[in-house]
Amino acid sequence: MLEQIKIVLIETSHPGNIGAAARAMKTMGLRRLALVNPTNYPCVEATARAAGADDVLAAAEIHTDLHSALRECSLVLGTSARQRRTLRWPLVSPQEAAVLASQEPAGLPVAIVFGRERSGLSNAELALCHSLINIPVDPAYSSLNLAAAVQVICYELRLRALSENPQVPEQLPTETPATVEMLESFYEHLQTSMVEAGYLDPENPRHLLPRLRRLFNKARPSVNEINILRGFLKACSNTIRRHNTKL
Amino acid sequence: MLEQIKIVLIETSHPGNIGAAARAMKTMGLRRLALVNPTNYPCVEATARAAGADDVLAAAEIHTDLHSALRECSLVLGTSARQRRTLRWPLVSPQEAAVLASQEPAGLPVAIVFGRERSGLSNAELALCHSLINIPVDPAYSSLNLAAAVQVICYELRLRALSENPQVPEQLPTETPATVEMLESFYEHLQTSMVEAGYLDPENPRHLLPRLRRLFNKARPSVNEINILRGFLKACSNTIRRHNTKL
Repeated sequence: MLEQIKIVLIETSHPGNIGAAARAMKTMGLRRLALVNPTNYPCVEATARAAGADDVLAAAEIHTDLHSALRECSLVLGTSARQRRTLRWPLVSPQEAAVLASQEPAGLPVAIVFGRERSGLSNAELALCHSLINIPVDPAYSSLNLAAAVQVICYELRLRALSENPQVPEQLPTETPATVEMLESFYEHLQTSMVEAGYLDPENPRHLLPRLRRLFNKARPSVNEINILRGFLKACSNTIRRHNTKL
Repeated sequence: MLEQIKIVLIETSHPGNIGAAARAMKTMGLRRLALVNPTNYPCVEATARAAGADDVLAAAEIHTDLHSALRECSLVLGTSARQRRTLRWPLVSPQEAAVLASQEPAGLPVAIVFGRERSGLSNAELALCHSLINIPVDPAYSSLNLAAAVQVICYELRLRALSENPQVPEQLPTETPATVEMLESFYEHLQTSMVEAGYLDPENPRHLLPRLRRLFNKARPSVNEINILRGFLKACSNTIRRHNTKL
């Protein structure tokens, strides 16, 4: 699905934003970038902010109007900070947009269109969109940076792509969890040590042991961890016993 | 919930990233920023990239070490691009992190910690975290910009805060979780006790302490539980010290 997505930036005025958008795309596995009338581009600042995503910049399509950037696309989703008062467009959340994009038949490009930093999309550009994506910014300060908006949308697209095609996270060998038997003998050991240290009074145990059981059970100790804890208890007991026998 | 969240940036080397992070936060309704040893800060570039979020910068706490930035926090979530090979830390997705943050009792600050642009978090910094947040970047290009990572995490936190029907399981009255400061002084106490008992060799500590930190951090000990554990350690130490003075 991600290879179908084309990110389209219209008349971006800060070339640094173009570079940062390319970097945002690439971290999320997107590669197709189209620029419509970028200002002051190409530019060293764009390349610098792209970091290792300069290949995305190098491969970017450059267009003189939005229509030509969208020509082969079947689904066009615009992004907008605000809703028009005059003509309401269908609004979707970033998650809903990712679902729409993922439902598009393979081979048909999906465009996600980002407007100018200051003024967004014109009405004519809006008219080319099937839906508008609304990122739920704080109404008290809605000034989302362009590359930051690209990052959020690409992140949601990636989450969607991963949910369809779960990527097995790199698994390191995990530690073997302790069995009930091991835990129980650890708790016995702990109790003995607490009594030896004079901390637990068997005649008046309060809730000390149940509380510690709950604590360790929350942590799901591994076999190794139980061995470390028991090693420590044993070292304490040995010292204390040597002491007690001398009294 | 959003007012409980503190974004902590460690030794950020590009002041522009600090400004962009402040802007990212504010668009999502977050205001609390803490900077640990920022390089070349304050700086006009930070203010420029903050755009209208310069109030977030102006109110930012500045610390000389991470520990002091976390002192009053009860939950600490680190962000990491990669998993350590030596010692695995619990990993959560951005969504899971937002759920964890939303479940923290009101009034207890939650820290989300972002490491250096190039090298991330040190092992000592990692040891202060309860879990690590893993943003699912493309393994082929995982170079997420710092402010972009802040944007993604703050976006998920905002989604969680906005969700009308949070799937919070019915909570029994919970005990107050221990703060970082309490945990750190418990770990110091534990270390001292392990050395006294002859179990930990300061010259050859192996991974004993990081492993125990990880274990206890998984369990999220309450204030009561820390008091019980320290009471036990103290009882052991007293007995051992009496013994040692008699040798």
